[in-house]
Amino acid sequence: MTEPFDAVEVIATKRDKAELSDAQIDWVVDAYTRGVVANEQMSSLAMAILLNGMNRREISRWTNAMIASGERMDFSSLSWKTADKHSTGGVGDKITLPLAPLVAACGVAVPQLSGRGLGHTGGTLDKLESIPGWRAELSNDEMMSQLEDVGAVICAAGAGLAPADKKLYALRDVTGTVEAIPLIASSIMSKKIAEGTGALVLDVKVGTGAFMKSLDQARELAETMVALGTDAGVKTVALLTDMSTPLGLTAGNAVEVAESVEVLAGGGPADVVELTIALAREMLAAAGKDDVDPAEKLASGEAMDVWKRMISAQGGDPDASLPTPKETHTVNADTSGTLTRLDALAVGVAAWRLGAGRSRPGEQVQAAAGIVLHAKPGDTITAGQPLLTLHTDTAERFERAIAALEGGYDIGTGSAEVPSVVIDRVE
Amino acid sequence: MTEPFDAVEVIATKRDKAELSDAQIDWVVDAYTRGVVANEQMSSLAMAILLNGMNRREISRWTNAMIASGERMDFSSLSWKTADKHSTGGVGDKITLPLAPLVAACGVAVPQLSGRGLGHTGGTLDKLESIPGWRAELSNDEMMSQLEDVGAVICAAGAGLAPADKKLYALRDVTGTVEAIPLIASSIMSKKIAEGTGALVLDVKVGTGAFMKSLDQARELAETMVALGTDAGVKTVALLTDMSTPLGLTAGNAVEVAESVEVLAGGGPADVVELTIALAREMLAAAGKDDVDPAEKLASGEAMDVWKRMISAQGGDPDASLPTPKETHTVNADTSGTLTRLDALAVGVAAWRLGAGRSRPGEQVQAAAGIVLHAKPGDTITAGQPLLTLHTDTAERFERAIAALEGGYDIGTGSAEVPSVVIDRVE
Repeated sequence: MTEPFDAVEVIATKRDKAELSDAQIDWVVDAYTRGVVANEQMSSLAMAILLNGMNRREISRWTNAMIASGERMDFSSLSWKTADKHSTGGVGDKITLPLAPLVAACGVAVPQLSGRGLGHTGGTLDKLESIPGWRAELSNDEMMSQLEDVGAVICAAGAGLAPADKKLYALRDVTGTVEAIPLIASSIMSKKIAEGTGALVLDVKVGTGAFMKSLDQARELAETMVALGTDAGVKTVALLTDMSTPLGLTAGNAVEVAESVEVLAGGGPADVVELTIALAREMLAAAGKDDVDPAEKLASGEAMDVWKRMISAQGGDPDASLPTPKETHTVNADTSGTLTRLDALAVGVAAWRLGAGRSRPGEQVQAAAGIVLHAKPGDTITAGQPLLTLHTDTAERFERAIAALEGGYDIGTGSAEVPSVVIDRVE
Repeated sequence: MTEPFDAVEVIATKRDKAELSDAQIDWVVDAYTRGVVANEQMSSLAMAILLNGMNRREISRWTNAMIASGERMDFSSLSWKTADKHSTGGVGDKITLPLAPLVAACGVAVPQLSGRGLGHTGGTLDKLESIPGWRAELSNDEMMSQLEDVGAVICAAGAGLAPADKKLYALRDVTGTVEAIPLIASSIMSKKIAEGTGALVLDVKVGTGAFMKSLDQARELAETMVALGTDAGVKTVALLTDMSTPLGLTAGNAVEVAESVEVLAGGGPADVVELTIALAREMLAAAGKDDVDPAEKLASGEAMDVWKRMISAQGGDPDASLPTPKETHTVNADTSGTLTRLDALAVGVAAWRLGAGRSRPGEQVQAAAGIVLHAKPGDTITAGQPLLTLHTDTAERFERAIAALEGGYDIGTGSAEVPSVVIDRVE
C-alpha cells in the first residue's frame, strides 16, 4: 500500500505551528494503529501537539480518527434512554458506585465502561472487585441484556473500542506527553463517543489530588471535552469539582465500596452524597428526564435495590462481607486545633503505597488496602485522637505510606479552607 | 543497575521549559546509548529541545556527553599542527578536495573525517570514490601515518567516535527533529572535538540549497558551534557562505573531482577558488600559522603535489581517467537575456535524482552522475545555448531530474542577484 503522507512531513507541520489537515490527522492516527507510523514518530508528534496545541477542528478530527480505529457500540435498541459519567480521576472518588444504580432507579440506563487504576488515583473496577464473586469482564451481549434488565452496568471496556487511543495512551505514559489537553480530551471522548451513550456528564476534578492542578487547566479541559461531545451529537455537560482533599472518608478498594453502600442506604459522608446527587441530576437532565428527584430515590431505597441487582447480575454477592485487612495502623493527632488542610495527593499516594493501587498495568492490588479518615478539613481535633487508619495486608508497606502523609495535613488555629464540592459547571 | 533518573522526569523538565541539569544531561545521553532510554523517549525529548531550546551550558554539556559516549583521537604525537574544516552541506560543495592538500602544502596537517551524502547534498567520500582504487576506510594507524607523511587525509569517520550522536542522528532523521539548532550544533561539534583537531573552521552555508535557509538561523548555528568549540579548547571560527546557487560549475561525483583538480592546477571557477583560499587562510590562522599565502601554494603546484600523494596513499590513481556517464542530456535556454537566478536546491535535487546521491543510508551512488553548468547567475544567455548538461548511467532518471529543474532558474532582463561567496565571519 502506498501511503499518502510521510510521517516526518506531518510531524513537521505541527512542529512548525501550522494546522494539521483533516487528511493528515486521519492518516497519522490510522497509520499509527497499523504500525506504519512508528512509536518514536508518534511521540515526537505528541510532544509537538503538547507544546504547540491543536484547535477545535483538529481535536475533533483526531477524536473521530481514534473512534474510527475500532468498533462503536449502539444502545438504540434499548427501551431506556442512556447517560454516562466520566471522572478525570481523584482520591476517594467512588461516586460511580452509588451513582450508576441511582440514575437507573430514576429511569435512565447507565452503561459505565470503566478502567483500572494507575498511580495514586483508584480504579472503579479495582474497587468493585473487592466484592466476592463480582466480575468486570462482560461480553457485549451480556452487557446489553443487563442494561435492559437492571438499567445499570459497570464493566471493563472491551479492547475493540478506540484501539488507537489504547496504543497512544501507553506511549504517552512513557514519553512525558500525558499532559497535553488536546490528547487528554480526545482520549477520554473517543472512548465515550464510541460507547454510544446518548448523554454524558463529565466530572473534571481540580486540585492537588487531581490531574489538573489549576482551575484554568481544568476549565480548558472541560470546555474542550464539552465541545467534542457536542460536535459528535452527544449531549455533554461538565462539572468542575474539588479534589484538594479526598472525597468522603475512605480511599482504597473495599473501604470505598462500604462507604458507597452507606450512601445507598441513606447515610454516608455529606460530600459524597452531595456530588452523587448533583451528578445524577445532570445525567437525568442531559438524558431529557428531569421529572424524578434522585434524592428521593436514594431515600426510598430504590437505588439500593438496583445496586444489589447490578452486583448480582455480574456474579457478586451484595450481602457478603468485604475483605478486611491483615494489618492496620492508626495515625493520631499530635496537637489540638482545627484540621485546616488534608491533602488529597498525600492520602492518594499513601493508599497506593499500602497496596490499593498499582505502579504499572497488570499489577495486583489488595482489596483490603486503603485509608479511613476520621476527620475532614474544618473538624475540631483533640491531641491524641485518631486522624487516619491505614489498612494493608503487608505491614512492611506502612513505613512508606506514613512517609507519604508527612506534611499532608495541618492542624492549627486558623480557619480551614473547606472548598465547595461543585466549583463550576460547563455546558 | 539502578538508574539515578527517570526518563519521563527528564523529558518533563525540558517540556516545562526548565533547564536540564548537568547530571540529567549526562545520564540521558549515556542511558540512551545503553538503550535504557528508549527511542520513543528520546524523540519526545528531542522535540521538546527543538521547541523550547537549550542554553549554552546545556548544549555544551550535551556535546560533552556525546563525546564521552565514545573514543577520542589524539594528534599531539604528530610533528604538525592540525586544523580541520566542516561544512554544513551544500550543492557543488567540493571545497574539501582542493582545501585539504592546499592547507597541508602550507604546513598545517588536515585530518578530515568525512561522511557520505544523504538527500540533495553530496558527500565528500562519494565524490572521492569516483577515483579508481581510492578507499575511504582507514585504520587509526593508517590515518596517523598518512597525516605525518603527507599532511592530509580525507577518510571515513570510525564508528567509535560519538556513538550517541550516530544513534541520535538516525532517530532525528525519522522523527522531524533534525531542525533543532542545539542538536545540530552538538552533533557536528561532538564529532569534531572527539577527533582531537587543534583548530576548526566551520563553513556554515545559507540559502535554498543549504540546511539553514535564513541568515539568522545560520548565524545562530555558527555562534552556537563557535561557542562549543571555544568551551572545549578548540580554536574555532565560522564563515557564513552563500548556498543560494551551486558552488562552481559542477554538482555530482566525478564531475566535482575533475573541477577540484582544475582548481589545484591553478584554474577552476572563481567562486570555488575564492572559497578554497578564504577557508585555507582561516585554517592557517586558527592553527597559528599565518606566514604562508595559500594562493601562492596553489599557483606553485605544491598543493597539487600533496593532492596526488594524498590520493595515492589511499590506493587511488590520481592520473587515471574518471568515470564518464553512459547518458547525457543537455538543457538549452529557450530565451535570451541574463541568467538572473539558478537555484541551488533545484540543481541539488536534480543531481540526486540522476544518481549522484542516495535516499537512504547504504544506497549505492553513481560515480559518473551529476550536472555540469554552462552558465552562472549574471551571465548573458543566448536562446538555444546549453544551460546545463545532465549526466547519468540510467536514462530513465532524466525525466524526474528535469522536473526538479523546472522553475529552478530565470532568464530575464533584470539584473541578477549575484551574492558574495563569503557573507560573514563569526569568531
